[in-house]
Amino acid sequence: MPRLRVALAQTNPVVGDLAGNAAQLLAAARDAHAAGADLLVSGEMALSGYPIEDLASRPSFLTAARSAVETLAAELDAAGLGSLAVIVGHPDGPFEPRALGGSNAPTAIAQNCASVLQHGRVVARYAKHHLPNYSVFDEYRVFIPGDELLVVRIGGVDAAIIVCEDLWRDGGPVGRVLESDAGLLLVLNASPFERDKDEVRLPLVTRRATETDTVVAYVNIVGGQDDLVFDGDSVVVDGAGRILARAPQFAEHLLLVDVEAEEAGDHPAPAGVSRVELDRAPAGDKPPLSPAVAELPDDREQLWNALVTGLRDYVEKNRFRSVVLGLSGGIDSAVCAAIAVDALGADRVHGVSMPSKYSSDHSRSDADLLAAATGIHYSTEAIAELVAPVETQLALDGVAAENLQARIRGVILMGLSNMHGHLVLTTGNKTELAVGYSTIYGDSVGGFAPIKDVPKLLVWELARWRNAHAEARGETPPIPVGSIEKPPSAELRPDQTDQDSLPPYEVLDEILEHYISELLGKDDIVALGFDREIVEFVTGLVDRAEWKRRQGAIGPKISAIAFGRDRRLPITYRPTDL
Amino acid sequence: MPRLRVALAQTNPVVGDLAGNAAQLLAAARDAHAAGADLLVSGEMALSGYPIEDLASRPSFLTAARSAVETLAAELDAAGLGSLAVIVGHPDGPFEPRALGGSNAPTAIAQNCASVLQHGRVVARYAKHHLPNYSVFDEYRVFIPGDELLVVRIGGVDAAIIVCEDLWRDGGPVGRVLESDAGLLLVLNASPFERDKDEVRLPLVTRRATETDTVVAYVNIVGGQDDLVFDGDSVVVDGAGRILARAPQFAEHLLLVDVEAEEAGDHPAPAGVSRVELDRAPAGDKPPLSPAVAELPDDREQLWNALVTGLRDYVEKNRFRSVVLGLSGGIDSAVCAAIAVDALGADRVHGVSMPSKYSSDHSRSDADLLAAATGIHYSTEAIAELVAPVETQLALDGVAAENLQARIRGVILMGLSNMHGHLVLTTGNKTELAVGYSTIYGDSVGGFAPIKDVPKLLVWELARWRNAHAEARGETPPIPVGSIEKPPSAELRPDQTDQDSLPPYEVLDEILEHYISELLGKDDIVALGFDREIVEFVTGLVDRAEWKRRQGAIGPKISAIAFGRDRRLPITYRPTDL
Repeated sequence: MPRLRVALAQTNPVVGDLAGNAAQLLAAARDAHAAGADLLVSGEMALSGYPIEDLASRPSFLTAARSAVETLAAELDAAGLGSLAVIVGHPDGPFEPRALGGSNAPTAIAQNCASVLQHGRVVARYAKHHLPNYSVFDEYRVFIPGDELLVVRIGGVDAAIIVCEDLWRDGGPVGRVLESDAGLLLVLNASPFERDKDEVRLPLVTRRATETDTVVAYVNIVGGQDDLVFDGDSVVVDGAGRILARAPQFAEHLLLVDVEAEEAGDHPAPAGVSRVELDRAPAGDKPPLSPAVAELPDDREQLWNALVTGLRDYVEKNRFRSVVLGLSGGIDSAVCAAIAVDALGADRVHGVSMPSKYSSDHSRSDADLLAAATGIHYSTEAIAELVAPVETQLALDGVAAENLQARIRGVILMGLSNMHGHLVLTTGNKTELAVGYSTIYGDSVGGFAPIKDVPKLLVWELARWRNAHAEARGETPPIPVGSIEKPPSAELRPDQTDQDSLPPYEVLDEILEHYISELLGKDDIVALGFDREIVEFVTGLVDRAEWKRRQGAIGPKISAIAFGRDRRLPITYRPTDL
Repeated sequence: MPRLRVALAQTNPVVGDLAGNAAQLLAAARDAHAAGADLLVSGEMALSGYPIEDLASRPSFLTAARSAVETLAAELDAAGLGSLAVIVGHPDGPFEPRALGGSNAPTAIAQNCASVLQHGRVVARYAKHHLPNYSVFDEYRVFIPGDELLVVRIGGVDAAIIVCEDLWRDGGPVGRVLESDAGLLLVLNASPFERDKDEVRLPLVTRRATETDTVVAYVNIVGGQDDLVFDGDSVVVDGAGRILARAPQFAEHLLLVDVEAEEAGDHPAPAGVSRVELDRAPAGDKPPLSPAVAELPDDREQLWNALVTGLRDYVEKNRFRSVVLGLSGGIDSAVCAAIAVDALGADRVHGVSMPSKYSSDHSRSDADLLAAATGIHYSTEAIAELVAPVETQLALDGVAAENLQARIRGVILMGLSNMHGHLVLTTGNKTELAVGYSTIYGDSVGGFAPIKDVPKLLVWELARWRNAHAEARGETPPIPVGSIEKPPSAELRPDQTDQDSLPPYEVLDEILEHYISELLGKDDIVALGFDREIVEFVTGLVDRAEWKRRQGAIGPKISAIAFGRDRRLPITYRPTDL
């Protein structure tokens, strides 16, 4: 069987930065060429970043993207890399507008494409067939689907090219891959990280490889983009289902692999398949590659890396120099600070202790310990003297006075942000946001929420994991034991703890998972064995939290890492018996 | 030709409030029956409200909705209205899950339906074919499309039933209406208000009536829901394109009309059409109806009514008792206060003047005049003594000190909201939000933004219109002339005006419309005759505003009235040469 050397470019693009993303691909092509590769494949939309949302509706952006593809082809050739076949993902257009609905509806003018570049030219182009429009995906809003499979013939092998969702659907282009007798299947992806996603993604790739009897080269982008994190984890699987090579998660990487694939026959291309002949440089004398199969770390480490990557790329891609966050001595702000240090280094992280008259001594000392253990910049801004004049002038008491403390802290963090250019991190976790234990314009202030999608129990687990991870490497554990072990409290009134007003987090987090993520009704949850009174109480909190959000007592939507499963709800609705 | 009396129920549903919405429909049915109607038709999803977003994915909600349809049928019968044929819009399910994508994708379990009720039973059901997924619509995310047309035969007439987007698409169910030889076409809609929408909607209805040679009864819901406003404007047009009846905009209404329609033939129902026979009560001796054709007010009044409706329903449907807003003496807060008074009455509106050391005398006096002219509750909270301690402790200056003033005002409004239960209104206009002239957690604080989608020039136009409207009716104009005529200023430093740093609003608003709403690139805008330097400056402000929003200098997304055309953009992207 013919042998090809295939390179997978697992790059970290920035949405809209066509020149910067092209430079990443050019660098990957240099390395691939130097390593004797015949083919280089990028992730989905690696040239534009993903998702581009409604940039796909801007003709000038599409024109710029198409021109960037042509420029990349020319630059590859000029750099002496013309013989390398490069398959690059990008949006293409503007095409003849296609109405998305009736006469008054907007139109789609773009396609989600993979272009084949060789010898300075764009040789062929494939347009994605299946446009996902669920969960975090909105492609059906802005793209026109393609309807023809592309096969490139190189070095005696037919390689079919598809994009992401095309692989997940039965039938469609995957069906034609089998008919086309291809030996290699190249898949460009922008597949976001979810917990346990490797439990569905790798089995799918393996199944498609065996079904189509091809070597599947699955290339994913990597890095954070707004509230998504792409994990890379690019992989090559042969027709017998064996993993030939696998790239590490959450890192830019060029994965090189030698594949043996079925020799192409001389039959004509079947209907619905476009076939293009590519050139191939003389194979020369290549020493064989040693197989590189990265191992996946365990669940906790994967999750930690996702959180670190999401924060780092939000900061870097938006060109912030530094971040600032309030340190309460509690577990949430401690974990956020540790994530920030891993993402940016201690010198770019600024912690502020903002004690009130209700702050306990251990709160202050735990914040001090965290700052000392991590080496971040650290300052104290007491709030009592700032709160008092407002409380007195407006005659605030009760919850209004409690919230005032949180809001003055928000004013302090934003003042420091404006003076020094820090991005403010807000430290709420998923459980607290779901039940409405948060003050809008108070502790919800910030541009990025590192643990917004992490339930409380998992925050503790991650804290313990991170400390153990440090100990195993002989490093100082970043998170003070006191922050992990003491009962959680908002400290907005004397001797307050979360468990004064909430069920144990073991019960709370499970009910929230059923109610919010799995969309179960109250009766369904009770049927799983939970106490009806607690179920009514918790679901009532969630429904009231929705109402408080409308009143202004819970934060507005902010950018954060989403692990994918929660769905959008209307703001105004009255819960019936859900 | 047979004659039928048709009633159109233009109701104002609340999303999720199945019992309340059913009560509205039952009341409409009573009136329709008393007026001798044969048929009553509701708007789209009148039983559940629209849009229900991902409530459509919650099995318990769908079960509750289906049960509400059955209950409504029984209640109609029990109330002696069983002979009236009632066609009601609602979500239906849960159905066998249909995957929205590949193996890991969520599933749809709901349909967007119209059910036919008579004599206590659900006689037939139609499922919407075309699921819009552009602009403000997201139906393709959550619904399963239907594939069969429904025709009900009543009083010798065949009436076809379709839902909203089905009417806008060529082919599809509209094509089968012609084949089915129906004499009447009943269309259930949830069609949001946009500026000049009547210029496309009525011509469409007229064209479909003449194309299909039917009488088209077009029923729309009315009222505000989150950031949408439905305008009603239900209409009946005959096969010659004549308007037989039209309901008023922005008001609940029962529109009654006698229609003469083609007699049904005895041919079988064509393929893809389900036909059901309905009963009809003896016609009796009905005095003929006088035609009711409401007139559309002019553009400014329509827009004002939309803004008033949007705010009123946001407040009422979320059960707030009152609203509070800062009164700066400027045009934006004055217009917001006038909208609030029209929506809720002066007694539910609380204005707060929050002067700083930079506030001019005319600012205070214009705020006083507004409060006096409208009769709202009014108080003053000077901010100097609250700002100083924070400014000193944190050593803030420059923009950080300017923003601090706005943020202390936000703290004051939220304190009053927490103490008294007011919803805070934020008063920014579309122009200022687009160019980033707003302080996050400062003047952007609030749960609802009445004029977020109104460009600055239009704010002035609306102010003048509202005052003239009052004068024409012998009422006191609400908006002080000084607020309209003085140069706009943020008053965050001495002698500041908007035009120190912005081009004239006449130029600015036009460029913004081209750049943001029409998605034109810079070169395209220059080609329209604008100065290149100004175009670069303004588009640069918009791009930087996006960046400032990421840093926290511009407000997060809040609920507001959207007139529909702007599109979603990623948060992190680097503008290339758009």
